[in-house]
Amino acid sequence: MNRINVIGSGRVGAAVAARLRERGVAVDTDEPELVLLCVPDSAIAGVAAALEPGPWVAHVSGGTPLAALDPHERRFSVHPLQTFTRTRGAEQLDGAWAAVTAERPDALGEGMRLAEMLGLRPFELADSARTIYHAGAVFASNYVVTLQRAASLLFETAGAPPEALEPLMRRTIENGFELTGPIARGDWSTVNAHRAAIEHARPELDRLYETLAGATLALAT
Amino acid sequence: MNRINVIGSGRVGAAVAARLRERGVAVDTDEPELVLLCVPDSAIAGVAAALEPGPWVAHVSGGTPLAALDPHERRFSVHPLQTFTRTRGAEQLDGAWAAVTAERPDALGEGMRLAEMLGLRPFELADSARTIYHAGAVFASNYVVTLQRAASLLFETAGAPPEALEPLMRRTIENGFELTGPIARGDWSTVNAHRAAIEHARPELDRLYETLAGATLALAT
Repeated sequence: MNRINVIGSGRVGAAVAARLRERGVAVDTDEPELVLLCVPDSAIAGVAAALEPGPWVAHVSGGTPLAALDPHERRFSVHPLQTFTRTRGAEQLDGAWAAVTAERPDALGEGMRLAEMLGLRPFELADSARTIYHAGAVFASNYVVTLQRAASLLFETAGAPPEALEPLMRRTIENGFELTGPIARGDWSTVNAHRAAIEHARPELDRLYETLAGATLALAT
Repeated sequence: MNRINVIGSGRVGAAVAARLRERGVAVDTDEPELVLLCVPDSAIAGVAAALEPGPWVAHVSGGTPLAALDPHERRFSVHPLQTFTRTRGAEQLDGAWAAVTAERPDALGEGMRLAEMLGLRPFELADSARTIYHAGAVFASNYVVTLQRAASLLFETAGAPPEALEPLMRRTIENGFELTGPIARGDWSTVNAHRAAIEHARPELDRLYETLAGATLALAT
């Protein structure tokens, strides 16, 4: 594909359009082979319905089903599994994976080719599995932010520098998510001491700590 | 210090002893200037009590108070804020921070010097703040493992490759923990769709998802 109309210039749309331009693709054309919707989830159905039928139509949303692209039948979805910021460009796509969803072999082929053109590592995802997949992505990105905020609050309370947390979080990933610490050792007296101290100093974090301790025992030991 | 008796050869003790050897320190000596306890938390008090008084005595535990080193008075603690694995060596200490706890200026100086000799970036931590500090470290390391396990379960359920999560988790840290995704957008219909899908396919994760969603709203938006 050499003519891809990218609609939307938010975090994802800007990175996608920049990468396509790097690849020599015309991204603002009157006769596109593909219209790629990089608009908010809630806007996809409306924008799709207003498009002239003919070209391929695709979206880059994580959780939105292909039916949102009605009435178009030549359709697919490519979701870059990454968090994007406005301060970076096309290189944000490098190394990330992408979920490709399609209902027909030709559409799947187009989606896979687009993902590869973007520099993504594609895998196929069933349309019916998108919500569960997207919930997994929330755990792996948004909730990592939440843990860092909770840990930073506790560090501030203790007089320790929150920036000290970052090498720890990075190494936890680099070490292949090997569980260490009190729960790995079955050291529940330390866990109980944590809970008592949180209840005293940061009671708003008690339920979060306790729920995560239970989940750690169930999932990671 | 040139003579430091390292007691304990677990994950932390092995890395610490290797680093001290690199620095030319004798780590198994009859006349140590410092005895450095790298034993399990529950063993610290017993090992300390059995040591002949005279040299400095220190431990490397995150949550254990200095009183566990009784009856020794020339004492301190250096906690490397890192997760360690047996498959790596002294280089695991590089780039990590360390909490140094002491009751006297000379002891604080010794702890700071030891941390720097180990290649760590030291900061002072009050003995009374250790439990809250340690709970923060659990959020930043152990609970990151828990999130990865939960996300992997959802990906497996969806037929998506769990290894695709790792670039997403790394970039979340690299981007300075900037929150993106449905909660950042106030998109509660997506959050509710996630909960309904989890309740159906992985009900054991529903409470964890819901507690984290609430904490994300409270802490990260």
